[in-house]
Amino acid sequence: MGAWKDELIRIVGPRGYLNRPEDLRLYEYDGGVDKARPEIVVFPRTTDEVSAIVRVAHRNGVPIVGRGAGTGLSGGAIPEKGGILVGFSRMNRILEIDLANERAVVQPGVVNLDISLAVDADGYFYAPDPSSQRACTIGGNVAENAGGPHTLAYGVTTNHVLGLEVVLPDGTVVQTGAWWPDTPGYDLTGLLTGSEGTMGLVTKIVIRLMKKPECVKTILAIFDSADDCALTVSEITARAITPAAVEMLDGCMLKMVEAAVHAGYPLDADGVLLIELEGVREAVEEQAEQVRQACEYCRAREFRVARSEAERQLLWKGRKNAFGAIGRVSPFYYVHDGVVPRTQIAPTLRRIGEISTQYGLTIGNIFHAGDGNMHPIILFDARIPGDLNRAQGAGFDILEYCIQVGGSITGEHGIGMEKVHLMDKQFSAESLDMMRRIRELFDPARLFNPGKLLPGARGCAEIRQPPLIAGNPVY
Amino acid sequence: MGAWKDELIRIVGPRGYLNRPEDLRLYEYDGGVDKARPEIVVFPRTTDEVSAIVRVAHRNGVPIVGRGAGTGLSGGAIPEKGGILVGFSRMNRILEIDLANERAVVQPGVVNLDISLAVDADGYFYAPDPSSQRACTIGGNVAENAGGPHTLAYGVTTNHVLGLEVVLPDGTVVQTGAWWPDTPGYDLTGLLTGSEGTMGLVTKIVIRLMKKPECVKTILAIFDSADDCALTVSEITARAITPAAVEMLDGCMLKMVEAAVHAGYPLDADGVLLIELEGVREAVEEQAEQVRQACEYCRAREFRVARSEAERQLLWKGRKNAFGAIGRVSPFYYVHDGVVPRTQIAPTLRRIGEISTQYGLTIGNIFHAGDGNMHPIILFDARIPGDLNRAQGAGFDILEYCIQVGGSITGEHGIGMEKVHLMDKQFSAESLDMMRRIRELFDPARLFNPGKLLPGARGCAEIRQPPLIAGNPVY
Repeated sequence: MGAWKDELIRIVGPRGYLNRPEDLRLYEYDGGVDKARPEIVVFPRTTDEVSAIVRVAHRNGVPIVGRGAGTGLSGGAIPEKGGILVGFSRMNRILEIDLANERAVVQPGVVNLDISLAVDADGYFYAPDPSSQRACTIGGNVAENAGGPHTLAYGVTTNHVLGLEVVLPDGTVVQTGAWWPDTPGYDLTGLLTGSEGTMGLVTKIVIRLMKKPECVKTILAIFDSADDCALTVSEITARAITPAAVEMLDGCMLKMVEAAVHAGYPLDADGVLLIELEGVREAVEEQAEQVRQACEYCRAREFRVARSEAERQLLWKGRKNAFGAIGRVSPFYYVHDGVVPRTQIAPTLRRIGEISTQYGLTIGNIFHAGDGNMHPIILFDARIPGDLNRAQGAGFDILEYCIQVGGSITGEHGIGMEKVHLMDKQFSAESLDMMRRIRELFDPARLFNPGKLLPGARGCAEIRQPPLIAGNPVY
Repeated sequence: MGAWKDELIRIVGPRGYLNRPEDLRLYEYDGGVDKARPEIVVFPRTTDEVSAIVRVAHRNGVPIVGRGAGTGLSGGAIPEKGGILVGFSRMNRILEIDLANERAVVQPGVVNLDISLAVDADGYFYAPDPSSQRACTIGGNVAENAGGPHTLAYGVTTNHVLGLEVVLPDGTVVQTGAWWPDTPGYDLTGLLTGSEGTMGLVTKIVIRLMKKPECVKTILAIFDSADDCALTVSEITARAITPAAVEMLDGCMLKMVEAAVHAGYPLDADGVLLIELEGVREAVEEQAEQVRQACEYCRAREFRVARSEAERQLLWKGRKNAFGAIGRVSPFYYVHDGVVPRTQIAPTLRRIGEISTQYGLTIGNIFHAGDGNMHPIILFDARIPGDLNRAQGAGFDILEYCIQVGGSITGEHGIGMEKVHLMDKQFSAESLDMMRRIRELFDPARLFNPGKLLPGARGCAEIRQPPLIAGNPVY
């Protein structure tokens, strides 16, 4: 016992690990509400070191979990069964940028936004933009198949990953995919993207870069009724345009965000849409006019177009800093990630309102409306006994409703440990069984991120005790 | 022996199968050069019938292969080991169209173009458009992950498939995916798309529909030098636009196509680009001007913009009927599907020219230049002993070069039986082993499309005898 730790320390060197209790405590949470402490955190610098670490885990039967910046919202990076946590903060290099072929090769620890910054001067960007993009890393994005406000136009992470280098659970290093979207053979890159660290540890990522649009226009549309606001979303997409982003904030969120950020959001409205259009200047102008008509048709009371980059940044500031703003109002919050068909947004918001009343908890909504990707934010106080349980109960009811209306339990946060007990509501026993067999194929010993993504027992629902939490992480 | 055929006949009924030798001969080829005869062809009408057929195959250890319209170019639908061929021509219904959510549910036997025609009046279309789109079916498109001229802007089939209903090799029916691009759990939809019938038979497909662009502009740019023509491709994409399609025809193809189609292509040029721009009218106008500048910069001698829909259709007619046009010149041809980085198109064309000289075979080029997806068309005469071997040798050399410059052996036709012996040049032993294990997980008895996609033996290259062919199919 513990000899495997010495092996790990030999691999990463004296400055490449943490194992004192006070250090390990910093690695027991992510952006969600779950917690668990690793036995050691190691920080490899190379693929060879990762492979050597994995071999130690494999030989000694020790659980192993990867971790980027720890901003995930579903507990994906929580070492639920203890063991080894592999931090990728030292594998943070952009290895290659190939603008002629619109590709880059990066290490997993590179911060999402840093990729766009590195190619910004050349007129390119990396499209998936989670709200946490100033902190979150590309490795975590790949593990959770992360999205963002611009998912509507550009898709999620899997649409932007062309190839991977992966250390498999026996330590073998494999390359998948290539430089082109349709690579021969089975789509292992697609299978591994979003697999939440249950099949291997990603050590290199080939990503797609995109041209920056010539023109970006950001619009704020203000509504007296949340229903009208929600209906506008399908009214916009029913016209011949796809905005780059359509974000909605309800009345509850508007007040919280405006009080903190002063973005100029109205305090008395029941809903606003933040709409972004991108493209060639003339096209953007024409689309803006069509969006204006759609908003007018749905009884918007005001329609503001940002007239400068500063105004644009201010409008987005409210959206991008919303989670920080909640901290002024509530010591704890719990954010969910259900998806519904775009046409079901209005009834889903009404159902969330009912659930809020029923549980006696405030629930604000700030979400990717264009994708039908709801983010109900449930406020609670973990210091009050039973409050976390109630928050989780409310979240569960919302996700059940999402499934009921033809949607799903996650749009971009992943399953993690948070929603693992809901997988058998989303999938048939046969589909889950097929996923389980694929997982076992990669990781027969079940050491890679155990407890995540798939419910453990076959066919029987797990009863899950929510862990007690002491505080809410801020990122 | 044969009792399993009676079981099949009981499932599909007296008018639901073919087993006379003269009928089976019609099912021994596809659009490629390989051939093999099934023992029986069955035409199920429902998922239950497909499942019952699969159970018969499973119990009796009989190989089983799906077939759409047989237009594939890599031998994917050829029953190499005999057994059961499952024709999907009676499962050809569009089951559901949901325009508000931009989705449709279709059976595998629906013809690709019929989907677009069904939603055309409402202003929608289905994006992937293989050259064979008037004949090929969506089930075959899913199996081979088909592309088309508009892949440049819209991606291949996998980017447009949201969910599948699949009969697994033991007869179990499974649903994968959902209505939204980021579905929870492992991406089984992505894994199955492009798996060439080796993991199951697809019986239902949820596809993404897209809005038709407001404006489409088609341009023909004519060059005296194939090098200049090829360079223009990266010159266009280096500017801030992505055309919907950039197709190239070299001098050799131009002559063949013009003689048959009379599309107005110049007979003395060394290369032309067929460029299509789509979008809002003003944006298309501006992009057309930028494309014109790029062509001029690369010494185009002429730049024609189609002024009417009729002129537009005429320009495309040459591209879309090219394969038929070759029949006037050569009794047989062999088309390949390698991919190279966009910046490597010019040297690859030069290398193809050298290979043409070396083998003494005419090779024309007509291809998706924007994607670097080469389609060298090797003319030969199968009645001359050794000519097919030489054609295959030339094809092999071209694909080897594609791999060498960082590309791949298929862009959209699939591996099939044609390129199975090249997989170990494209992938490491570890990657192939991982694919093999996934295949075995789905189909341990190896009855589903045996001999396709993955080389049979572990680690040792197969020596492959090309089959003798009697004629070239036309579709």
